[in-house]
Amino acid sequence: MHRVKVRVVEDALDANNTIARANRDDFDRHGVTVVNLMSAPGAGKTTLLERALRDLEGVRVGVLEGDVQGSLDADRLASLHVPVVQLNTGNGFGGECHLDANMVRSALPALPLEEIDLLIVENVGNLVCPAEFRIGEDVRIMVSSVAEGEDKPLKYPLMFRACELVVINKLDLLPHVDFDMERYLHHLDAVHPGVDTIRLSARTGEGVEEFRAWLRQVPVRAPA
Amino acid sequence: MHRVKVRVVEDALDANNTIARANRDDFDRHGVTVVNLMSAPGAGKTTLLERALRDLEGVRVGVLEGDVQGSLDADRLASLHVPVVQLNTGNGFGGECHLDANMVRSALPALPLEEIDLLIVENVGNLVCPAEFRIGEDVRIMVSSVAEGEDKPLKYPLMFRACELVVINKLDLLPHVDFDMERYLHHLDAVHPGVDTIRLSARTGEGVEEFRAWLRQVPVRAPA
Repeated sequence: MHRVKVRVVEDALDANNTIARANRDDFDRHGVTVVNLMSAPGAGKTTLLERALRDLEGVRVGVLEGDVQGSLDADRLASLHVPVVQLNTGNGFGGECHLDANMVRSALPALPLEEIDLLIVENVGNLVCPAEFRIGEDVRIMVSSVAEGEDKPLKYPLMFRACELVVINKLDLLPHVDFDMERYLHHLDAVHPGVDTIRLSARTGEGVEEFRAWLRQVPVRAPA
Repeated sequence: MHRVKVRVVEDALDANNTIARANRDDFDRHGVTVVNLMSAPGAGKTTLLERALRDLEGVRVGVLEGDVQGSLDADRLASLHVPVVQLNTGNGFGGECHLDANMVRSALPALPLEEIDLLIVENVGNLVCPAEFRIGEDVRIMVSSVAEGEDKPLKYPLMFRACELVVINKLDLLPHVDFDMERYLHHLDAVHPGVDTIRLSARTGEGVEEFRAWLRQVPVRAPA
């Protein structure tokens, strides 16, 4: 039984990777670099985008919002005057806990790829499954919040390993929570040695300019 | 294709429910009431248990810790001198993002069911899939943190609907975050009218006695 289950899972991931490559071909054809933005629920992905995209000069950005249900996050980003497309995973039973390549593919016709340089895909808030499904992205960014505790890299290692940047958000809460930054960085280094990190507060704006700078050089970093 | 996928999912949930009922029979035979404790990563489930179980007189408690990897939470609870069993979901590819009835069943031989009245199963931190998989529990408790934002009931409605109690944790952070309690309760009421709520801070201890009282009456509430 177990063997069969693993086989089915592997087949599903193979199928996903095939579609992810097709997405990637489409993105490449339009010269669009893609960021897969992942985090636990409530880590502050949308607030970070609200802050960072407002002054991201020189890059034409689009956003694909993944949520189980509703369009709250897409609505929040509407005032930024960038193209935002909402993708809901909640058909069927309770909703999918992640975006997969096929869901992203279904949203491509709604995205003005020829008008953007950088597409940011805000994944469903979850620290497990989003890391397992490639969507055709160039880089992955993981947003972690100091309110979540310093043990998260050890408890969800795949997620922290499957990204090129770890944003440590809600720095303004640091005086009010039991979070030892040195210990967190030690844990992170154990699961993903040398990964880029940026400490910021999306709420106050502290550190957000460093995040903007990182975003601006993503198209340069990404392999052609 | 879509139809086939939904059919497979339904079969999987049917199979899960059958095993959940077998678990439930075993729990009933031993007179054990079971709580399924769910939340997003870092909402404070383990800290809450550390606080609440220390002085939960009159009830013999056991804990089943579900994590993708590691035994950090089980280690933290070891000092409580209650039986704690760790269950890791991380075999195979990246780890399962929830506990299912079969995983819990595999842990039953390690649990001294004849020596406990109340089993608390700490699920994997995730706001989607744990709500979809019954494990043989009597009641479900959802721990939500004010640091996660007031929109979570609307974004993850199944999770907030599939529980008998919503704990609103990290009350001590309320002055430091943008969280409108009235709006949160309004959202919660929209997805699960009348559900019990307890506001507390597992960190400071405020409100934890009310949570203990709620736990103590679980065996009484549960159908025989």
